[in-house]
Amino acid sequence: MESYMIYMPLVLAALGLLYMFIKKSWVLKQDAGDGKMKEISDYIYEGALAFLKAEYKLLAIFVAIVSVALFVVSLVVPTTHWLIVIAFIFGAVFSAYAGNIGMKIATKTNVRTTQAARTSLPNALKISFGGGTVMGLGVAGLAVLGLTAFFIFFYHYFMGGQWTDTDAMTIVLETLAGFSLGAESIALFARVGGGIYTKAADVGADLVGKVEAGIPEDDPRNPATIADNVGDNVGDVAGMGADLFGSYVATVLAAMVLGNYVIKDMGGNIVSEGFGGIGPVLLPMAIAGVGIIISVIGTMLVKIKSNDAKEAQVMGALNVGNWTSIVLVAAACFGLCKWMLPETMRMEFFGEGLLEISSMNVFYATLVGLVVGAVISSVTEYYTGLGKKPILKIVQQSSTGAGTNIIAGLATGMISTFPSVLLFAGAIWASYAFAGFYGVALAASAMMATTAMQLAIDAFGPISDNAGGIAEMSEQEPIVRERTDILDSVGNTTAATGKGFAIASAALTSLALFAAYVTFTGIDGINIFKAPVLAMLFVGGMVPVVFSALAMNAVGKAAMEMVEEVRRQFRDIPGIMEGTGKPEYDKCVDISTQASLKQMLLPGVLTIGFPLVIAFVPMIFGMDHLAIAEMLGGYMAGVTVSGVLWAIFQNNAGGAWDNAKKSFEAGVEINGEMTYKGSDAHKAAVTGDTVGDPFKDTSGPSMNILIKLTCLIGLVIAPILGGHTDDAQAAVPTVIEVNNIQDVAVNGESITIQDVDVQKTVDDETGMVTANVTIKRKVNGATVSKTHHLKGTKAEVDAQIAQLDAEVTSFK
Amino acid sequence: MESYMIYMPLVLAALGLLYMFIKKSWVLKQDAGDGKMKEISDYIYEGALAFLKAEYKLLAIFVAIVSVALFVVSLVVPTTHWLIVIAFIFGAVFSAYAGNIGMKIATKTNVRTTQAARTSLPNALKISFGGGTVMGLGVAGLAVLGLTAFFIFFYHYFMGGQWTDTDAMTIVLETLAGFSLGAESIALFARVGGGIYTKAADVGADLVGKVEAGIPEDDPRNPATIADNVGDNVGDVAGMGADLFGSYVATVLAAMVLGNYVIKDMGGNIVSEGFGGIGPVLLPMAIAGVGIIISVIGTMLVKIKSNDAKEAQVMGALNVGNWTSIVLVAAACFGLCKWMLPETMRMEFFGEGLLEISSMNVFYATLVGLVVGAVISSVTEYYTGLGKKPILKIVQQSSTGAGTNIIAGLATGMISTFPSVLLFAGAIWASYAFAGFYGVALAASAMMATTAMQLAIDAFGPISDNAGGIAEMSEQEPIVRERTDILDSVGNTTAATGKGFAIASAALTSLALFAAYVTFTGIDGINIFKAPVLAMLFVGGMVPVVFSALAMNAVGKAAMEMVEEVRRQFRDIPGIMEGTGKPEYDKCVDISTQASLKQMLLPGVLTIGFPLVIAFVPMIFGMDHLAIAEMLGGYMAGVTVSGVLWAIFQNNAGGAWDNAKKSFEAGVEINGEMTYKGSDAHKAAVTGDTVGDPFKDTSGPSMNILIKLTCLIGLVIAPILGGHTDDAQAAVPTVIEVNNIQDVAVNGESITIQDVDVQKTVDDETGMVTANVTIKRKVNGATVSKTHHLKGTKAEVDAQIAQLDAEVTSFK
Repeated sequence: MESYMIYMPLVLAALGLLYMFIKKSWVLKQDAGDGKMKEISDYIYEGALAFLKAEYKLLAIFVAIVSVALFVVSLVVPTTHWLIVIAFIFGAVFSAYAGNIGMKIATKTNVRTTQAARTSLPNALKISFGGGTVMGLGVAGLAVLGLTAFFIFFYHYFMGGQWTDTDAMTIVLETLAGFSLGAESIALFARVGGGIYTKAADVGADLVGKVEAGIPEDDPRNPATIADNVGDNVGDVAGMGADLFGSYVATVLAAMVLGNYVIKDMGGNIVSEGFGGIGPVLLPMAIAGVGIIISVIGTMLVKIKSNDAKEAQVMGALNVGNWTSIVLVAAACFGLCKWMLPETMRMEFFGEGLLEISSMNVFYATLVGLVVGAVISSVTEYYTGLGKKPILKIVQQSSTGAGTNIIAGLATGMISTFPSVLLFAGAIWASYAFAGFYGVALAASAMMATTAMQLAIDAFGPISDNAGGIAEMSEQEPIVRERTDILDSVGNTTAATGKGFAIASAALTSLALFAAYVTFTGIDGINIFKAPVLAMLFVGGMVPVVFSALAMNAVGKAAMEMVEEVRRQFRDIPGIMEGTGKPEYDKCVDISTQASLKQMLLPGVLTIGFPLVIAFVPMIFGMDHLAIAEMLGGYMAGVTVSGVLWAIFQNNAGGAWDNAKKSFEAGVEINGEMTYKGSDAHKAAVTGDTVGDPFKDTSGPSMNILIKLTCLIGLVIAPILGGHTDDAQAAVPTVIEVNNIQDVAVNGESITIQDVDVQKTVDDETGMVTANVTIKRKVNGATVSKTHHLKGTKAEVDAQIAQLDAEVTSFK
Repeated sequence: MESYMIYMPLVLAALGLLYMFIKKSWVLKQDAGDGKMKEISDYIYEGALAFLKAEYKLLAIFVAIVSVALFVVSLVVPTTHWLIVIAFIFGAVFSAYAGNIGMKIATKTNVRTTQAARTSLPNALKISFGGGTVMGLGVAGLAVLGLTAFFIFFYHYFMGGQWTDTDAMTIVLETLAGFSLGAESIALFARVGGGIYTKAADVGADLVGKVEAGIPEDDPRNPATIADNVGDNVGDVAGMGADLFGSYVATVLAAMVLGNYVIKDMGGNIVSEGFGGIGPVLLPMAIAGVGIIISVIGTMLVKIKSNDAKEAQVMGALNVGNWTSIVLVAAACFGLCKWMLPETMRMEFFGEGLLEISSMNVFYATLVGLVVGAVISSVTEYYTGLGKKPILKIVQQSSTGAGTNIIAGLATGMISTFPSVLLFAGAIWASYAFAGFYGVALAASAMMATTAMQLAIDAFGPISDNAGGIAEMSEQEPIVRERTDILDSVGNTTAATGKGFAIASAALTSLALFAAYVTFTGIDGINIFKAPVLAMLFVGGMVPVVFSALAMNAVGKAAMEMVEEVRRQFRDIPGIMEGTGKPEYDKCVDISTQASLKQMLLPGVLTIGFPLVIAFVPMIFGMDHLAIAEMLGGYMAGVTVSGVLWAIFQNNAGGAWDNAKKSFEAGVEINGEMTYKGSDAHKAAVTGDTVGDPFKDTSGPSMNILIKLTCLIGLVIAPILGGHTDDAQAAVPTVIEVNNIQDVAVNGESITIQDVDVQKTVDDETGMVTANVTIKRKVNGATVSKTHHLKGTKAEVDAQIAQLDAEVTSFK
């Protein structure tokens, strides 16, 4: 049984995908309505496909370029294997395919939801959530399937399917990082490009349609209305899906890397502990696999019975499914930790040396992750939810104009970083205290285990939103729109909490990747008291700020192109306002598509370019590789800390403005007076929402990709920066730079030896000796200290020390 | 000569203050006008005094509490001397007195400038800039006078006026840190409280006066108009002055601390090098002292001749003075470095050991500081200057409404972090590469040397602004207002660039303090790969964001109180609108004063409370002190990085919005049409300015105080966190924890020794031996590694090692 465990996640993922296909065909079999409904739905479907097609073209070019670059690197750098290119391509293809499934099902489910809403609310929920489930399982299933399949392949390819040593496993995992890099690259396109698309279409449609032409939202006379509806799918469905696909893969990968280092800390071999000696490496995959099945169970629990249900009942149904999955994951983590991990492990803790950690400690760390996932959703809900105190305050401040509304919204977003960051900081601390960085990574893995469920909850929102739009455009009975509005309203809440979950996942994933990076490079920490590292911390902190600005400006530029096209159509197409002329929807879709993909290039280049420049420019100038690794680590930390802050700030400010505006729909009390839509205060709130839109749908969510991709690029570069070459050499006894003294002497400089310092360590288990011989000498007046790292058997190292001693003596 | 150098800065500061008093009496002798002018000016003067009085009351309580706390600490902690309390009180008093001089002269100069503007522009500049000069020299003179006097006192008190060793000097400088802490505490009140005051009064006056009552700005019928004018002085004069006073003192102090460590790295004694062996410690004070005289020269060069001069000529006159001072400081640094420093020094560089650094390298580092000061002003000018590309873009975006104006402004502020942070990062790198952290601190010192000049340029702006207001209120000829407007317009530019200078000074000061902190605590770096340190980096990054939100909200609350009072007066005072009833100016002044001081408490508590909690809560739980020190360091780094980013973002966004709005006064071309005040686009720009006001005048500048005060509190706590106790013990050979093995054995646990590792280092100069003996043992199955730090003569240490060896053998 134990030896087959490596295949278990593969099987579970396949089962999840099987269920997904069954659910998908069920959804597609539902009645798709008739006439105008179907027509509009087809426009949206085709618009979505048009975006995907254009995106894939650009992606293909991007993947080709990166593949060539990776291949060249694999030729030059001995520790990088060319198979990383294959993993990269598959990571990109799998993520793109998952996005494709999600987009298609979402754009097919919307009209079926509208049709179902004509009969009853429970049916409408069943279908819209069914579509979400397909999306969620597609993403989670493909993520686990791809990652596990490649792991099994590499494990057999590099290690013959049997544990040999940590270094070999490191090569397996470094190659596997290609899969993760591929997935996250797609996320960059889908999340950032999608974010620009959705807001450009939205702003464009609103500015000309609502403001200039005075026609309502989702009016079929507006040429940009289809693009707007496509945008909901592109941004909220495909973008979010790719984001979480990337997080899922990266988290599991990072946990596997750290699991490998647990084995190393335990002496490099735990085959006697079962699971082929790779239990700590397999565990994260196992949790991910089980999480898929648990999510299936969770989605099955989401249903309502009463046709008169309101938001609270629908939300309640979602909560039942969500909480059940979280509790089940906790139970599964308990079982899996107990079963797959050695009862006690040894882990290296900074400054405390090797400590004994029980498998239960690892379980506690996973609980930390589950708590973070749940609490961050509540925090987000508090700062952005309708009727909550911060929203009411923004509403009040709207009465004195747009300026005070903006200040209140900004302040809300800023203050919301307080509980969120304390939560993250507490999570880092606690999960590390329980089980080191392995604990941090497993906390993230446990949180991500319910990804399929989270995505189902998340994707059902835009589907319902679309369904409402179709109801409006096809002029259905008011009851239909009322029903879809209930679903849409719940969807708005889940969208906000889903963003919180996505940030938390990105933050924990980045931390896990960061930890994996440090172990990969072999540096003994990232010391920000070194000026170059501190400088890079500053630079890293700046990048998310500039990235956000670029993303916001991109929305502005893309929206302007859209505005001009819509104005042109209103001007040039006769009878468009009377409903006799037909708007050219496809032109608007095309403009959003082209503009969004064009505008995402600059932020994309910033994301990818900075870490590469930091790594390779100093290398060209001959800087020490480990020093570069530390600088890059400082940069990664800067991006992560600042990126998490700006993600929380922008998402919550945007969400708060949005709901402050929505509050006016039902009417709000300001200074004792009921105030409604159309009032000056409402207009001020609309201004706030205009600012909040790119915050919460473009720049805010993009932060997730920025921080994860930065840390992943670091991880892929890690082997080049020296990485585990030191470890690899440990197998062969070598003496490094033993001729150094003579080298210097050859230059004819004056040398006096000041001090020799020998530090020797014997590994009790392997009998290998490590020695650091530090020689301080005055070279032409300047004191230079140089450490020689020696490794080998005792006899070998002693001989080398003797040789160094002789050299030193000859110079004294 | 050399031995008197310690008194040189004192003499120069006194000379500066003497010149200040001469200039002051000259300004006060100028014609203060008559009738209404004088009356209004008196109101402003009394309002300013009222604020100062209220502030002093609150300050007295604050200083009393902190003094008691510091005194208790000095009783409990052996390494902290009670004299720190005296230094603290004097630091606070000196800073408050400097603020007092500045406020008084500014509120006396404004009306004299108006009067002078009735005759000619050159006269008006001469007087307004004269007032600025008094302010600048008051701040710089008192800063240097106080710091040097206390240094001389402590140097004689603790060391008898003669070099003994690094540890004694550390106690001198640690006690001196009290002076800096006192100064920065006042800055907290003056900058944050002043920032809230000025915006509350401004918003209150505008909302009711301009918007509701429809009367122009600076109309004497508006009850809040005096408070508004007082606010300009409170925020821009006293706030900025206290900010730079704090930076000046902290920078010089940090450079002195690092200078002391240079002496340590050079073997602990350089008496043979002259200057009583404390050249590297004296140098920063000497640069500060010479800087005062150079600033006097610089201010003398600021003059125009033509009465028809425009903004460009006035700006040119200021530039002549500014650039001359910068060049003179560079020359002075060359001479002082060459003269006061040993020709070559040894400095410890991380990972590279001790390196030889020539005194010229230190000079190059000072040049880096001067370049940063100059370039940051240009960067700020580019992103916020009238007619510059970013401003024109915001103007364009105003045509589509307030929403797009806000987005454009936010994006401008965010993007402006790009060149600014790259500049800072480059400066850190370069100055460190030249001369280590001593170089970083001296870069800051050189930049701050022209503080008096910078403040003069900065303070002349609000004086001219006030002069214009008085001209308006006292109904002068239009030519008077035209002349003061020219000065005011230049003042707006210098205010923006002055904010850039203040940020740069705060950033470099914090870095220097950060470096001093690390050397004080004796930790060997701040490793963010340790989870608790990383967690604190996150928390630190969050604090500036939350602080900014609190400051913005504070403005909102204080402004609301003001609005209600103004509304009440318009309602209750008969004839107020007709000019027959007299508004109660003092009530408004009182409300601003009380509200601003009340509202600054929460952000103040956040600033002071967080580092204290991080330091003392884990201490209560028995956490290792050095681990706490590292955590606190992580927090400090987080606050600094995030604080600098948010300072740049908020200041530049606010400045950009302000000038985008001002652009409409002369008219701007939008889509080919000239657009003026009163247009919809202008209204959108006004909304942007409303948001920008608290950004650029309250929360943005407060960041400077937040980051400096955080690092200063860290520095003052440093000795408690273990600090130089280790160094103190170095004098007496001791063996630490040599009985540890037996201690463990007593507990009856099973122990096996796994490995013993001895690392021995001999100091060639002192002959002292340092040894680290690491013993790895299995205690009840867990591997525990413990390092024994031994220090002493070779014989002593060898004996201790033998003892440890014997113990180990008996356990093997």
